Amino acid sequence: MATHPLDPLTPSEISQATALVRAQFPAHVLPVFRVCTLHEPPKALLFPVLDALARGQAPAAGLAVPRIARVHTVSADNADGGLTEFHVDLGAGKVVYREFKHGKYSYIDAEFMKKVQLVCLADEKVQQEIRNYEFPEESEVVVEPWNYSADGLHEVGKRTTMCWLYLRRVSHPDTNYYAYPLDLCAEVTNDKVTKIYRLPSSASDRIHNTPTKFDPRLAHSADLEYHPDLRPPPRTTTKPYRVIQPDGPSFSVTGHAVTWEKWTFRVGFNYREGLTLHDIRYDGRPLFYRIALSEMFVPYGDPRQPYPRKAAFDLGCDGAGINTNNLQLGCDCLGHIKYFDGWHVASDGSPLKMPNVICCHEQDDGILWKHTNFRSGNAVVTRSRVLVMQTIITVSNYEYIFAFYFGQDASLNYEVRATGILSTVPLNIDDPVPPYGIRVAPGAMAPYHQHLFCLRMDPMIDGLNNSLQVEESHALPIDQDDVHNPFYVGYTTQSSIVETEQGLDLDHTKARIFKIINEDVKNPITGTPVGYKLMPSYSQMLLAHPKSFHARRSEFGQHAVWVTRYQDHELYSAGDFLMESTEGDGIATAIARRKAEGGDASNVRKKDIVVWHTFGSTHNPRIEDWPVMPNEKMMVGLKPVNFFTANPGMDVAPPSQDVNKSVLVEGCCKN
Amino acid sequence: MATHPLDPLTPSEISQATALVRAQFPAHVLPVFRVCTLHEPPKALLFPVLDALARGQAPAAGLAVPRIARVHTVSADNADGGLTEFHVDLGAGKVVYREFKHGKYSYIDAEFMKKVQLVCLADEKVQQEIRNYEFPEESEVVVEPWNYSADGLHEVGKRTTMCWLYLRRVSHPDTNYYAYPLDLCAEVTNDKVTKIYRLPSSASDRIHNTPTKFDPRLAHSADLEYHPDLRPPPRTTTKPYRVIQPDGPSFSVTGHAVTWEKWTFRVGFNYREGLTLHDIRYDGRPLFYRIALSEMFVPYGDPRQPYPRKAAFDLGCDGAGINTNNLQLGCDCLGHIKYFDGWHVASDGSPLKMPNVICCHEQDDGILWKHTNFRSGNAVVTRSRVLVMQTIITVSNYEYIFAFYFGQDASLNYEVRATGILSTVPLNIDDPVPPYGIRVAPGAMAPYHQHLFCLRMDPMIDGLNNSLQVEESHALPIDQDDVHNPFYVGYTTQSSIVETEQGLDLDHTKARIFKIINEDVKNPITGTPVGYKLMPSYSQMLLAHPKSFHARRSEFGQHAVWVTRYQDHELYSAGDFLMESTEGDGIATAIARRKAEGGDASNVRKKDIVVWHTFGSTHNPRIEDWPVMPNEKMMVGLKPVNFFTANPGMDVAPPSQDVNKSVLVEGCCKN
Repeated sequence: MATHPLDPLTPSEISQATALVRAQFPAHVLPVFRVCTLHEPPKALLFPVLDALARGQAPAAGLAVPRIARVHTVSADNADGGLTEFHVDLGAGKVVYREFKHGKYSYIDAEFMKKVQLVCLADEKVQQEIRNYEFPEESEVVVEPWNYSADGLHEVGKRTTMCWLYLRRVSHPDTNYYAYPLDLCAEVTNDKVTKIYRLPSSASDRIHNTPTKFDPRLAHSADLEYHPDLRPPPRTTTKPYRVIQPDGPSFSVTGHAVTWEKWTFRVGFNYREGLTLHDIRYDGRPLFYRIALSEMFVPYGDPRQPYPRKAAFDLGCDGAGINTNNLQLGCDCLGHIKYFDGWHVASDGSPLKMPNVICCHEQDDGILWKHTNFRSGNAVVTRSRVLVMQTIITVSNYEYIFAFYFGQDASLNYEVRATGILSTVPLNIDDPVPPYGIRVAPGAMAPYHQHLFCLRMDPMIDGLNNSLQVEESHALPIDQDDVHNPFYVGYTTQSSIVETEQGLDLDHTKARIFKIINEDVKNPITGTPVGYKLMPSYSQMLLAHPKSFHARRSEFGQHAVWVTRYQDHELYSAGDFLMESTEGDGIATAIARRKAEGGDASNVRKKDIVVWHTFGSTHNPRIEDWPVMPNEKMMVGLKPVNFFTANPGMDVAPPSQDVNKSVLVEGCCKN
Repeated sequence: MATHPLDPLTPSEISQATALVRAQFPAHVLPVFRVCTLHEPPKALLFPVLDALARGQAPAAGLAVPRIARVHTVSADNADGGLTEFHVDLGAGKVVYREFKHGKYSYIDAEFMKKVQLVCLADEKVQQEIRNYEFPEESEVVVEPWNYSADGLHEVGKRTTMCWLYLRRVSHPDTNYYAYPLDLCAEVTNDKVTKIYRLPSSASDRIHNTPTKFDPRLAHSADLEYHPDLRPPPRTTTKPYRVIQPDGPSFSVTGHAVTWEKWTFRVGFNYREGLTLHDIRYDGRPLFYRIALSEMFVPYGDPRQPYPRKAAFDLGCDGAGINTNNLQLGCDCLGHIKYFDGWHVASDGSPLKMPNVICCHEQDDGILWKHTNFRSGNAVVTRSRVLVMQTIITVSNYEYIFAFYFGQDASLNYEVRATGILSTVPLNIDDPVPPYGIRVAPGAMAPYHQHLFCLRMDPMIDGLNNSLQVEESHALPIDQDDVHNPFYVGYTTQSSIVETEQGLDLDHTKARIFKIINEDVKNPITGTPVGYKLMPSYSQMLLAHPKSFHARRSEFGQHAVWVTRYQDHELYSAGDFLMESTEGDGIATAIARRKAEGGDASNVRKKDIVVWHTFGSTHNPRIEDWPVMPNEKMMVGLKPVNFFTANPGMDVAPPSQDVNKSVLVEGCCKN
């Protein structure tokens, strides 16, 4: 099968690219490979090809799209320094770009973090502190390393790791040590412990240096565990539930191309964003050039030093792709499941398989539409089938379940489920709880924090030149001669089109909606521009003060909706390099830069635009989020608005009991 | 089986009650029965009984709860006048209350509306107007009768019906006549046509009296139809999808009591609210005494006379219960389905069976919680099973799908799906669309309108004395000596408890949440009051001006969250009698009345309270909502917040492929 320009790099392409990059170094230097991924083609080259393919045509001669690998290496002696980016033209077999990224750092290195854990535990002073606790015999100290998030107290670029310490109270690899946070903390710089101190563990605001003894009241309890080995037997009341698809799934997959119920799109995967979607069309009409989660930020709201160092960019620093789960059949989804594998690069440049990182399956979603004619008594009902593209990531304690839902009514929804374990800090049993969290276990506080996601939507609504329209519903004025509102009940819409790049906010009190429209294509029935509207998730924006490092590093957290002019490779709303960063090269900075350039660069009306939606949750934990939180759902939607000429799901066939074989539960209510 | 005090009336009880009421009238007077339903017991009597039963005890002697039927009759000669309410003590076999409801009117009488349609079509002037159109031969005029909603131009109580006329272009009982609205309108008072005029059908604001000819360009088109008989063959790409539960459902139903996964509750049904839920407990602990949709209002935003008369109270005027669909196995839901029947009263007093008005079934809801230990690589995942209680109503053109979802994590969600057909008004083919709607067919405009729902939640969070707490998240100030926020990233919650009855608003910018708490019961781990929080649906409130009849009749539309002191039989947020009403006896009026009374009546802290949530959609139609709209979902949730001592779903067993038997779709993506 021919490679499509959007296919992720194949294992052989990864090998080819890293070999070509390795040849750039002297023979005695062994570069450490961190990234080897598809450098997506410029849209100006790719879009005509996609358009031709969508029409079933071969791309015109001359529409060659070079296949480029983007490779990051760091030097072996300082694995997170010396970041160099290479672009390798795989067709030409040569390196076409090389740049040392001065002052930039590669994302978190899991191998290095393992070393940090060992270094921390092996440190004599740390060992002495641990001995001072006089832990019960079966206990074991666990190091949870987090990369240092700027608080102004450390020089960045020094590769500082915060080692938060926890205790395993029983000897089992899956015991929930987050139930026993220690008040001991170590800073590791490169691979040396440079500082040890005790965390605030009472209502006091300050770190302290008074050694404490382990409180024997911190008994082990099965209630604090999540692994079935360590818990009482589970409930047995939930009876089996199977999804049977006797004729197989309704989707078909060829390579990375998915076809389902008039939808076509391509699946991508990379180390940073994880799942990406490309070239999304419905019934052949172009809708979205690319949709993917752009960034997410989890800042903690506990102001006490050193907790402000807890602030995770789960894409830019951790990497959603490399932290993706290997999904399990019959567990992470039901029915007929198609899995996609991902490929990453090992530090030596060899391809690294990540099996089953994306699952593709169908779900029944209840009723799609229904009408009963009250005159005839006849009902027509259709059921909603959805196609789900799901991926799950684990970032230390937390997990996120990301799923795109394609609908037969041409809607596309994006759901985030937050689950996993709360990151805890120590809290003395007898002390009151500081106003930044709740007590979840006798010795543990779960601090307040936010989860802010930014979904990047690169539209091509019937073509590339799109506009963002903001529409609100307003009551008509009363008692005004020139306004016809004799009964005081009239209302109408007010809309404006955004002219320049900016961030905007939600306002449900005005039913404010955001439509991505193509002003040049009018709907034949309504006479209005064709479009898709954003169904936002109403969320509080970033709480950290604009002067804080958190705010300066996560510019996307200022506003709920952003619109920018499309730029090749402008994919990340907080900037490209976030490790050890102190302020953004993010979306607000990019907008300001183009504004300063003047001219056409900032204009977004009838242009190739990108829309970004920031949403999430202010997560002030409840005890019910513990020890593993039941998923907290957030949903963002895209719906056609005067794009088609009718409900696109009108042609879905009514269901039949002959096919669906549902079962009547007998024994009626007492009459 | 003994009758539970909350069981809906049985057929024999209905017969008994109506016989006793009939005996109140002289022999020659035949009362018309409109309502015969359970008059729910006073909470002061019932709660101790429920509490004893929940503890597995027989209610103490002396805890007798009389069983009362509430009966409405109207007089036969003027079916909607002369409303009399009776309370019948079924145990004692006697009428214990009788009151003529002066100036109040019974809900819409479907039989009368059928008569109105005939009267309208038989009217000589209407016939002449119809002849003037010169419709194509196969056409047929259809009358859509709506009860008159006050606009100040008519005296109320005159039983005025607005007859909106539509055209069937083909001869089929299920053709979509909403695609061909006529500009002809008739007012019928009682059973006489009293006025005929032509609707605004251009950009003009005024009704007119110029007869128009049928525009032959209004051709019939299969695209305007929804019934399979009249459409092209449906898509065949959607393959079968079955839900198989080899061991049967996980729920059990005894009479109207449902038990499922630690939940217990009782199902009710009445002509007005339809589905009601009672005595909702989790693991034996009381959560909600009663939850039901309280009212819904659909006002149209087109200011042109006579469209302000289109404003439907779908509970108070139409009746959600009597308009409930008979649900079909394998169509309206999948899997193992338990149906509940409802019982209503025929006009002669005999019991009227409404089969299959509620379905009870389970659904898989994706992942409940998951954690992968990044050290061991071990994942523990559980799937979320939900119990769905679903009911569907048809109110003329529209349908609403109402569903309660019970979760294994002790969450309770309420979902509304709006579907059905848009109510249309005429629009000349060549004229521009007025700014109050969109064109959905060559001769039809779908006007802007709102759907406002009000969910009534009567809590008993660990007892009857509850409080409503409003909590917000606020950044800590910076550079303030007495506030510890050295890195500018701190935030905390601010909360207050509502002291008196009032309406409140949502504010996502402050992450404002509403908790129903029991201040007298502290969580043993967090030390905070036990509670449940409302996950609201962010919606615009009523747009109609406060001076308008719409606003005066739908007081609940002013605010998103209301808290009141519990009163027996204060169930309806817009008031008890809405037919022909001009202003509310609604929630704001009730609050003002109690405030005027002074004393303790308005206090809601540590009291038996009721919380009401108003939500909905400002529905400015899109062409994709036509001819039948794909469901528009709205979701409201209730979640425990420091009510339990851990995630209540921790004991859900991890799934197993041996049981779930999912199927791997082979053929991987190209590597």
